[in-house]
This record gives sequence, C-alpha cells and structure tokens, in this order.
Amino acid sequence: MSTTEKPDRSRRSERSRQAILAATRALISEVGYAKVSIEAIAARACVGKQTIYRWWPSKGAVIFDSFLALGEDADGQGIALPDTGDIEADLKLVLRATVAEFADPDFERPIRALQTEIVNDPDLAAQYRERLAGPMNDAKKARLRSAQRAGQLAADADLDLVLEVLYGPLLQRWLHRTGPLTPEYADSLVELTLRAFRP
Amino acid sequence: MSTTEKPDRSRRSERSRQAILAATRALISEVGYAKVSIEAIAARACVGKQTIYRWWPSKGAVIFDSFLALGEDADGQGIALPDTGDIEADLKLVLRATVAEFADPDFERPIRALQTEIVNDPDLAAQYRERLAGPMNDAKKARLRSAQRAGQLAADADLDLVLEVLYGPLLQRWLHRTGPLTPEYADSLVELTLRAFRP
Repeated sequence: MSTTEKPDRSRRSERSRQAILAATRALISEVGYAKVSIEAIAARACVGKQTIYRWWPSKGAVIFDSFLALGEDADGQGIALPDTGDIEADLKLVLRATVAEFADPDFERPIRALQTEIVNDPDLAAQYRERLAGPMNDAKKARLRSAQRAGQLAADADLDLVLEVLYGPLLQRWLHRTGPLTPEYADSLVELTLRAFRP
Repeated sequence: MSTTEKPDRSRRSERSRQAILAATRALISEVGYAKVSIEAIAARACVGKQTIYRWWPSKGAVIFDSFLALGEDADGQGIALPDTGDIEADLKLVLRATVAEFADPDFERPIRALQTEIVNDPDLAAQYRERLAGPMNDAKKARLRSAQRAGQLAADADLDLVLEVLYGPLLQRWLHRTGPLTPEYADSLVELTLRAFRP
C-alpha cells in the first residue's frame, strides 16, 4: 500500500458520502419521501447500493444524515440564540424564522419526510433527540434561563414544557395543515407562552 | 331481479366492508403500518383486492375509515364534553383520557399509522379535519365558549389557538417520544393553557 493511497481513498469516500447525501435531499424534494429508494439514491449519486448500505442501515438513516449535513457548521461553532435582554423580542425573532421555514415549500417537503421517519422509528427518534433537537433545545433553554434570571419568566418554570408550548402548536398546525403559518401566528405563540409562564 | 336480492346483496356488502375495516385494524396492530398492504387486508378479510379498490382509492383511505368506524355511535348521538361549570376540572378529565389513550400501546400504534398518513397526504389531512378532528373540535369549542360566558376564559380568546395549546404539546411529546405521558402532564397542559388565556 503506498503512502498516498489512504488519503486518496479517504477523499474518495468523503466525496461519495457527500454525493449520496446530496442525492438524497434532491430526490426527497423532487419525488417526495415515499418514492425515494436506496436504488434511486445510488443511481443519482453514481455509487453502488452496497456503498450506501456499508454506511447506513436504512433509508431513514440516510435521510436523517442528509438533513444533519445541512446544519454542519463550517467553523464548528455552537448554536446560540439572540439575547438582547428582551425575551419576547428574541423569541419572536426565532419563532418567526421557524414559521417561515415551515411555510417554505422547498424546506417543508424534506422536513415532512424526516418527521414521518421519526414518528415511526423509535431509534431514529432517539437519534433526532440526541443529535438535532437536543443541541437546539439546549441553546433555547440557555436563553430561557437568562430570561428567568432577568425576572421575565417564572423561576420555577419547567423549561421543557415552555419549549413544548412554543413549538408544539406550530408542529401540529403544520403537520395537520389546519391553519396559516404567519409571522402573526409566531408572535401569538410567544405572547401566550410568556403569559402562561410569567413570574 | 327478485325483490329479496337487493337487501341480501346490501347485507353482504356491509359484511365485507366491516370485515375489511376489522382486518385493517388488526393488521396495523400486529405488523405496523409500513407492512400492511392491500393484499394482506384482502387475504385477512377473505375478499378480493378489487373489492377493496372498488370502495377505497388507497391504503391510507382504508386505514382512515377503519378508525372512523371505531367511533361510529350506535345511537347516532353527537359528541359533547362534560360541563360541570368548572372548566379546569372538565378539561383535565378530557385531557387525562386523551393522554391515557396515547400512552396505551394498543391504541397508539394504529393512531401513529394514521398520523403518518395524514402528515404525508393533504387530501387525507382534509378528510381528517372534516370528518374526525372537526366535529371533535366543535364539541371542545362549545365547552370553551361556555367557559367564556362564565368568565373563566378571556372573551376574546382565539379558541382554535386555545385547542392548539392544549393538544399541540401533547402531540409533539407523543410523536417525538420526548417525555412521559402522565395524568400530571395532562393537568399541567390544562393549567398553563388557562393561565395563558385567563380573562
């Protein structure tokens, strides 16, 4: 084995991995989750099916990683929420951005596919909690704790529950398509949550 | 055609329809939604595939009707929520029952299957809103209006939003398996919702 072979192979592997993840995202957007298959991903990414199965145990796992790859920070920095000292303004900014993402057809289709996988696959749900929702929730809770210290939120508020009240109604409205996803809706959720958990 | 032939045929049709719906529910509970097929339903119900396709356009539609059939009232009575005059007690009763259903493995598996179908099929989502969620929400809103008249809930509260705050967090926790579904959790949701929308 030459000294250059390993880096080359590693570069090729990374190129294949990225091609597979990009192909997965493209296919989900184009045909929807139900019609995406490992075969189609392999063909689109110009790799063999076995290459995919070597790295991922299931279609759900590839889909999940294709989303995680989108969020990989180039600089490895952690996530932090804005903290202007005004919890209502800061949460409205964050929730308006989330509502806008959910209302965006390009974004919503792959995320809907991911949600379906999560709902039906307890292992994937656990991965989602640990790798994606967990770090996001930690960042949100850090901001909520700052609001507690500033006396803008009840000191004994259950922060997991606060986050569920902020995001659960939005998730339900989006999943069931029961109402419009507007900036005003985002504002309403923030206002009622702060009323429910005020000191 | 004899005069008795039509009733006989109608009875046979109804028997087949009920057999198909029962087979659908049984299969979902046994093997999960992903592995239920029209073929398996037909085999289990002892009917031909064409009989199923004559009445339902898709697997999702059969599944949906198999749930609706469960809720068909023998006496055709409408749905109404308890109204003791105490909105907090009445909502806790209702939400504790819902939480218990979601925590019940026998119930949760087929309902999870239905949720998946709804999330991915806008037509089914519309049917769900009209035929199942709509009538339930009307009953809940009637109880909330009574609480508004009694001064226990803000007169200008958006009742759709009140229901989203009551049920959205529960849906999220259940779908993502992020926390326990307990009577105490049901109580917390009722209490925070009433705080958020108090007069």
